[in-house]
Amino acid sequence: MVEIAILGFGVVGGGAAEVLTENKKLIASHCGDEIHIKYILDLREFSDHPLGDRVIHDFDIILQDPEVKIVLEMMGGSHPAYDYSKAALLSGKSVVTSNKEVVSTFGVELLQLAKEKGVSYLFEASVGGGIPIIRPMQTDLSSNKILAVSGILNGTTNYILTKMKDEGAEFSDALKEAQRLGYAEANPAADVEGIDAARKITILAALAFGKLQDPKTVPTTGITKITKEHSAVAERFGCALKLIGHTEEIDGKLLSFVQPCLVPSSNPISHVDGVFNGILVDADMLGRSFFYGAGAGKLPTASAVVADVIQIAKSLQKPPKCPIWKAAEARDLAPIDSYVCRRVYVVEGCHKCAEKALAAFGSNRVEFFDGGFFALLTPAISGEEADKAFAKTGLSAKFVLPVLD
Amino acid sequence: MVEIAILGFGVVGGGAAEVLTENKKLIASHCGDEIHIKYILDLREFSDHPLGDRVIHDFDIILQDPEVKIVLEMMGGSHPAYDYSKAALLSGKSVVTSNKEVVSTFGVELLQLAKEKGVSYLFEASVGGGIPIIRPMQTDLSSNKILAVSGILNGTTNYILTKMKDEGAEFSDALKEAQRLGYAEANPAADVEGIDAARKITILAALAFGKLQDPKTVPTTGITKITKEHSAVAERFGCALKLIGHTEEIDGKLLSFVQPCLVPSSNPISHVDGVFNGILVDADMLGRSFFYGAGAGKLPTASAVVADVIQIAKSLQKPPKCPIWKAAEARDLAPIDSYVCRRVYVVEGCHKCAEKALAAFGSNRVEFFDGGFFALLTPAISGEEADKAFAKTGLSAKFVLPVLD
Repeated sequence: MVEIAILGFGVVGGGAAEVLTENKKLIASHCGDEIHIKYILDLREFSDHPLGDRVIHDFDIILQDPEVKIVLEMMGGSHPAYDYSKAALLSGKSVVTSNKEVVSTFGVELLQLAKEKGVSYLFEASVGGGIPIIRPMQTDLSSNKILAVSGILNGTTNYILTKMKDEGAEFSDALKEAQRLGYAEANPAADVEGIDAARKITILAALAFGKLQDPKTVPTTGITKITKEHSAVAERFGCALKLIGHTEEIDGKLLSFVQPCLVPSSNPISHVDGVFNGILVDADMLGRSFFYGAGAGKLPTASAVVADVIQIAKSLQKPPKCPIWKAAEARDLAPIDSYVCRRVYVVEGCHKCAEKALAAFGSNRVEFFDGGFFALLTPAISGEEADKAFAKTGLSAKFVLPVLD
Repeated sequence: MVEIAILGFGVVGGGAAEVLTENKKLIASHCGDEIHIKYILDLREFSDHPLGDRVIHDFDIILQDPEVKIVLEMMGGSHPAYDYSKAALLSGKSVVTSNKEVVSTFGVELLQLAKEKGVSYLFEASVGGGIPIIRPMQTDLSSNKILAVSGILNGTTNYILTKMKDEGAEFSDALKEAQRLGYAEANPAADVEGIDAARKITILAALAFGKLQDPKTVPTTGITKITKEHSAVAERFGCALKLIGHTEEIDGKLLSFVQPCLVPSSNPISHVDGVFNGILVDADMLGRSFFYGAGAGKLPTASAVVADVIQIAKSLQKPPKCPIWKAAEARDLAPIDSYVCRRVYVVEGCHKCAEKALAAFGSNRVEFFDGGFFALLTPAISGEEADKAFAKTGLSAKFVLPVLD
């Protein structure tokens, strides 16, 4: 019997308990032993729940019980989630988490601690919900240098953008619908401002390049200013408009961002609609591989949590080795305007202005729209070069969208 | 230093050597030790190759060298690949293979042997080339019951079908182009008749359901009879025409097939074009997840091979546990006509015939084509029910295509 404790009996914690109960036999067959939920830590009582008798309110009981080998941190937020995770690791327990806030903020320290204590700190569910991405990057892609990772990392915003595209909805209406369906929270800022995606891209970047950037320093643009004009431009260029988290290394420096991008249909990310997530990994030997699935939701997220639990439980004496990350400092970061890509400049103006802009970029692709504006596609150049070229025209852009090829 | 031997210095064997050489440091950092190619077994000499001095012609040298811990079977074909793999396992060496023919034919025995000897038999590269699918199914999805697996498992046929769709090419011309580009072999039967895909679907089925079916008994239809009529029907129904390998369990019995299917755009498989592969896994907790990438090619396939090598090398004392499969017997197999799906019947005839057919199926979707034929979409029913309903009409079908929803 492998004893575990669940911290937080909300959506994901409850889901983990459900998966462990529903697929108990199957899971035991993988572990070679049964997994038993000994404690559930929550502020609330769950007296009517079949597992209600496991509910406790004092974390120290878990900490001081040497039988508990694995702690599932499913609380969300930074505190006390981080503090409890740290305490559990310090006392020699492995920790499994779905908490991207804690991983992206305290990952360096917690992974180091796990190593020192010979336990695991696993976080498959922190990015892409149930989609296998963390472990595949560490195992299946371990023969590769990772070149870049890009993806739709937030289902809420992807639902909203899909709705705006398919139904011509305005942002505010699509958001309301997402809230009605439970896809978006009452305070949707973390999703629609791109904060959630920024946390996730720092985790993927750390997996790929070994350095964890403070998510607050990731250049991040959400989708609150997306209008029908953006959708019209995307459609005309045969692209999908998606909120993209992207990371790559430029001359050994980390370049990560979150922002709405145009994604051509040749990129599998462009076909990810609704609340789904999709992550594209570019690697030197494998080339492009793509991982798609439910990026959130009770059971999908719990599926990844329990997969982590199984990996630890099947090898309790020698739990899976975790990566060691460095904290990325300012000098480890490349300036955002060094990012090279094609770009679409959307500009108010007539054919004559468009000709000026085409000449400035040496481009030959421009589209005109009702409402007196045009959209110009640049060749692949850095943001710095693009700004310089555009400045020469004396025009001012309504907005600029990078193209994720 | 972890000593390994490569059997067969062709495309994949050469690719494995290249990956191990190119990313030597990175790979050593994952393993905690350097991987060293001690022997390369091939009939040919490679005197000008940097690794030419490792080339030997006698397998017994490898077998009798206790320093060699991992054998990479990259020979292709059943014999002597199977015999050498067995001998290596029997002598306590782990084996990594990309050989779907051997895994699908002898997997039950070789996995059992690996277990008995406390070594690994890993085969990530045998399905989907470099795409992570075997290990994710065994680890990330281990908290789930797998319900079904479907995919484009053969890049050659997908290249041909994409060419036929995009350029209106005939099968024979698209095949010639694939041969010219090196995507299809001079004798393309194993690809275009679906034999290769059948081998791969038996491996995925065994991973999902624990039973390995003889690939020769998998109902298999290739793409040699696909015409422009098929493409026209697919287009009219908003579907892509894809050669699909599919497996599921019906009442505890295995149902696997390979055949051209219509795939609606809501299914991510429909967007997989060219030589790429894509595999969709349906699981009880996670729902649908999808894995996409290079299904063949030197370095992508080698990427997966070397990932397997790393997994073994980093834990030589206790190499990764492998699954144990049973051989599927006749009584373990569900009849193919128990498969439930929507179907498109393509029938020569006029509006009156179409009305008769619509009534027989209780369907309301029919499309008429130049050339005097129509295509009717049935509701989701079993093949047996569909045949029965259609027989009542007295009509005869030009062809029938299942819809993979």
